[in-house]
Amino acid sequence: MVKTLAVIGIGLIGGSFARALRAVGSVEHIIGIDTDPVNLAQALALKVIDQSAASLAEGVAQADLVFIAVPVHSISTVVAAIAPFLKPGAVVTDGGSVKDEVVKACEPLMPAGTSFVGGHPIAGTEHSGVAASFAELFTDRRCILTPTSATDSGALKLVSDLWGAAGSRVEYMDTLSHDRVFAAVSHLPHMVAFSLVHAVNRSAEEEENILAFSAGGFRDFTRIASSDPVMWRDIALMNRSALLDMFDRYTLEFTALRERVAAGDAEWLEEFFTTSKRLRDSIATR
Amino acid sequence: MVKTLAVIGIGLIGGSFARALRAVGSVEHIIGIDTDPVNLAQALALKVIDQSAASLAEGVAQADLVFIAVPVHSISTVVAAIAPFLKPGAVVTDGGSVKDEVVKACEPLMPAGTSFVGGHPIAGTEHSGVAASFAELFTDRRCILTPTSATDSGALKLVSDLWGAAGSRVEYMDTLSHDRVFAAVSHLPHMVAFSLVHAVNRSAEEEENILAFSAGGFRDFTRIASSDPVMWRDIALMNRSALLDMFDRYTLEFTALRERVAAGDAEWLEEFFTTSKRLRDSIATR
Repeated sequence: MVKTLAVIGIGLIGGSFARALRAVGSVEHIIGIDTDPVNLAQALALKVIDQSAASLAEGVAQADLVFIAVPVHSISTVVAAIAPFLKPGAVVTDGGSVKDEVVKACEPLMPAGTSFVGGHPIAGTEHSGVAASFAELFTDRRCILTPTSATDSGALKLVSDLWGAAGSRVEYMDTLSHDRVFAAVSHLPHMVAFSLVHAVNRSAEEEENILAFSAGGFRDFTRIASSDPVMWRDIALMNRSALLDMFDRYTLEFTALRERVAAGDAEWLEEFFTTSKRLRDSIATR
Repeated sequence: MVKTLAVIGIGLIGGSFARALRAVGSVEHIIGIDTDPVNLAQALALKVIDQSAASLAEGVAQADLVFIAVPVHSISTVVAAIAPFLKPGAVVTDGGSVKDEVVKACEPLMPAGTSFVGGHPIAGTEHSGVAASFAELFTDRRCILTPTSATDSGALKLVSDLWGAAGSRVEYMDTLSHDRVFAAVSHLPHMVAFSLVHAVNRSAEEEENILAFSAGGFRDFTRIASSDPVMWRDIALMNRSALLDMFDRYTLEFTALRERVAAGDAEWLEEFFTTSKRLRDSIATR
């Protein structure tokens, strides 16, 4: 399906994409590019890639498809750096978890005759690096593509077909809709968990028993507060607008709840908690 | 260790306490009392209890120890109802997850020559009723006892020894300290999760894709929002003071985070998330 694939950032996501396409025979030759020489050498040793490239320019020169799997903050910088070296007809796609700012920044950087397609595979593990990658990471997981009016239909079909070949269920969403969805179901919950850990730690400074009792349900509930700080810094900054909107929606609910607890409003509280349970249980069965 | 035990509310907690003490031979005779006749008949059929009592008065008349395992809001009502019928020297203890208001309400109700000991076994499953009870529920789980200056030392030793016999690690805490600890590590996280479900549901009214994508990490994170609404109504009301304090501590952190996201303060955000991760990971290894 693709003769030469270049993967920039050959870690968990980039490495798994390469492995998945290789496994189904959708690619002939894979070139890897990575800022970490140890990781890059490992990708070669593991035969995840056929060839490593010393520079972005060299890496993308022969590529029919370029997959950018670097931190979301660096995607447009990478696109700016590779743009002059892309061959005519080349398609560039990414795996960033914020889409509007990324796609808006990347599209104007693309030379005539090349195409950019925004993407976000909904998959991951708590591990990172090429050694953690595996061909089945995307199996039955969703991959969202975010075409715009500027997106070439042939390029979109190619990227869609490749994610399908990698095992994903491909869905299309506009960039702003994507960012609102993930602000709600992922980015806000992370902000809540990060804040909760800080608040409980502050109270533990006055009440030493708190830390001793935080090893139970609290530890499970705040598992996502253990996520990579730099990744979440970048997501918070790059999906700022949709995230601030969710901050405010959440604050409305939380403030209302605080007021009703303070007022001792038993009826309101039972109704609020009952609705929470019903909504959450309906999510669980979808 | 105890001749006759009366368990009021013979569900998951009450039933498991009875089974655990029976299994280690710490009790001779167990009387069960429950507002649900079907559950009570089942307790008898399962031999969790030796005898069912038709009334609180009849149930406690011969008891050396009374264990009250009813919803936290009803504990003092039960104590008021049984007080006139307790035999001299009887010890009454409870399993409620809020302690200051419960203990303050119950202690003055106890007749001279009887004793009340506040308790909170840190154990449970998502099931309820006597059919879900099992003797190992408390094995290696903590049980907090909250003695006051009014607590009889012999009564405290008896209750402590019985929880130890049931497999628990017994710890002592004053009632206010207990309530502050659980406001932080349990009650606040539940309030946060309940609010989060409401906020995401509101945003889903405008962005239909949100529900379709809430089946992943969001579902796991909000699992505790599926807890019993009536139980949480009562906890919110009965631990109001400590809970409101935690609401305010959390709001300080969350508001500061919102401001730094709005300001695009990358350095502050990275520091905040890094601290969250460090704090949460240090909890995990305790």
